[in-house]
Amino acid sequence: MAFETMVSEPEGASSRQLVECVPNFSEGQRPDVMDAIQSAAAEVAGARVLDRHADAVHNRMVLTIAGTPGPVAEAVFRATARAATLINLDTHRGVHPRIGATDVIPFVPLGATSMQVCMELAVRVGRRIAAELDIPVYLYGEAARREGRRRLPDIRRGEYEHLKSALPRDPRLAPDFGPTHVGTAGATAVGARRPLIAYNVTLATSDLGVAKAIARGIRESNGGLPAVQARGFRTADPKIVQVSMNLLDTRRTPMSLVFERIRTDAAQRGVAVLESELVGLVPSEALVDVARQALQFGRLDAEAVLETRLLEQALE
Amino acid sequence: MAFETMVSEPEGASSRQLVECVPNFSEGQRPDVMDAIQSAAAEVAGARVLDRHADAVHNRMVLTIAGTPGPVAEAVFRATARAATLINLDTHRGVHPRIGATDVIPFVPLGATSMQVCMELAVRVGRRIAAELDIPVYLYGEAARREGRRRLPDIRRGEYEHLKSALPRDPRLAPDFGPTHVGTAGATAVGARRPLIAYNVTLATSDLGVAKAIARGIRESNGGLPAVQARGFRTADPKIVQVSMNLLDTRRTPMSLVFERIRTDAAQRGVAVLESELVGLVPSEALVDVARQALQFGRLDAEAVLETRLLEQALE
Repeated sequence: MAFETMVSEPEGASSRQLVECVPNFSEGQRPDVMDAIQSAAAEVAGARVLDRHADAVHNRMVLTIAGTPGPVAEAVFRATARAATLINLDTHRGVHPRIGATDVIPFVPLGATSMQVCMELAVRVGRRIAAELDIPVYLYGEAARREGRRRLPDIRRGEYEHLKSALPRDPRLAPDFGPTHVGTAGATAVGARRPLIAYNVTLATSDLGVAKAIARGIRESNGGLPAVQARGFRTADPKIVQVSMNLLDTRRTPMSLVFERIRTDAAQRGVAVLESELVGLVPSEALVDVARQALQFGRLDAEAVLETRLLEQALE
Repeated sequence: MAFETMVSEPEGASSRQLVECVPNFSEGQRPDVMDAIQSAAAEVAGARVLDRHADAVHNRMVLTIAGTPGPVAEAVFRATARAATLINLDTHRGVHPRIGATDVIPFVPLGATSMQVCMELAVRVGRRIAAELDIPVYLYGEAARREGRRRLPDIRRGEYEHLKSALPRDPRLAPDFGPTHVGTAGATAVGARRPLIAYNVTLATSDLGVAKAIARGIRESNGGLPAVQARGFRTADPKIVQVSMNLLDTRRTPMSLVFERIRTDAAQRGVAVLESELVGLVPSEALVDVARQALQFGRLDAEAVLETRLLEQALE
């Protein structure tokens, strides 16, 4: 029954694959160039350019594109092709590190879509950029094929200028796809990652040392929780400190586990947890994880979230 | 900073108002009529027809329309106007009770949109249907102005046929807007409600009496939890019974509270809770409520959910 007053939400096929792509372009000043790149992406049916964020000081623009995998891949490829003709890295200046006209292309799974889908997209789009645009492509993040290329800062070291001189002669810089030289469009990092969650927990103490010690204990780089970056900070209130975190993959370390661990660690130091805070957005999947844990859901995934299902339908 | 590898989700203005409308039309057999009604809604820019569900036996169709309030109101009005010219209740037959060509128009808040927005939409659209289409309109649900009109079954009692004969002479049937007589398009119920959550909790016992007793204790009609309907059922497994619920407003009674109450009630009877189950979809706001409770979030609303924000942008 799907009629009022029964359950009246949309039924029908589930598990549509939905991805977000947030390509970064090295142009944040010339509106005509930004418009042209955006238009190239927007002309693909089935992909939607949902947001554009530009910064003149960074001289950089980010598009948020969402939809099903095929159209999103086509849209970002067309935008990359357009950017390659309109942006010249030899004359580009901005405070943000960059290696190319299209600097980085991250694919992010939405809803209950798997990371595998985004890893495959990165490879497909990366190959095409190399083959059709003659641009060196580095696979990064979850799509990385070399351990030293998982992190963008490692790929961007020395930026375009370094690649221009060193790429032809340094085999360690050889791209995953494409030529061992750069043109004026530079190189592009193409990858896959989970949505990043900026998550803080505040503690009822003025002792910054407590926050720092807990952060040290939980961050992955110290052998703590997988996919967790953490630091201790003061807050505006001198009686409160916080553990400030980036959660890079809540499938590996759910928010509930992070919260419980901090609560336990703080309690051992005689300190109470005050509250959780989000900076920015949280993917529905992370909330589903929390509910699954807290209410003992047997099966529950992001496909069950009304707004996620509506988003899939809106982007069809 | 909104650039890769910083937080790269869309920034910008929040709190866009987003609503869903799931109008039910008394036509589930003639494709040309269903197409014409759907087209009338789909031609409004800013409203999206996300889903269509039809049933020939019920002779009924449900459209799922989403977007910002103004366009959604316009879309559902146009569909209602079209339905009034194409559907004749004097010849309509179907097993589902109905009072009109457009039988019921529920407005549902999405994301962090308030119920107030939907109540106002119901009044606005209801007035317009009465004024421009000369159709009697009954406000129901959260938009009801008389206590006996909150529930649809009370409004639908006797259906179109009863209204046709009784409306001109029975002042208790007087509509909230419009004439005291019906034409072949009948009458329409226009209202506002929260998304309904069909939520079950299974118990590790073969004793159906335990599930029934807990259900009796928590349902609103027995003075239990507000906005909760509950019944006890057997399951396919003879060693497991379940408390099966409709949660009509998780702002009044959050899922966490329902779960805790059932767990406590079951424990007092020496029975363990096995797991939670959802039937159908859950609005992101209900999950946000669970996370707020479980992880002690100070401030957190559905606006913070990535897919909800993307949905807002997709429907702009």
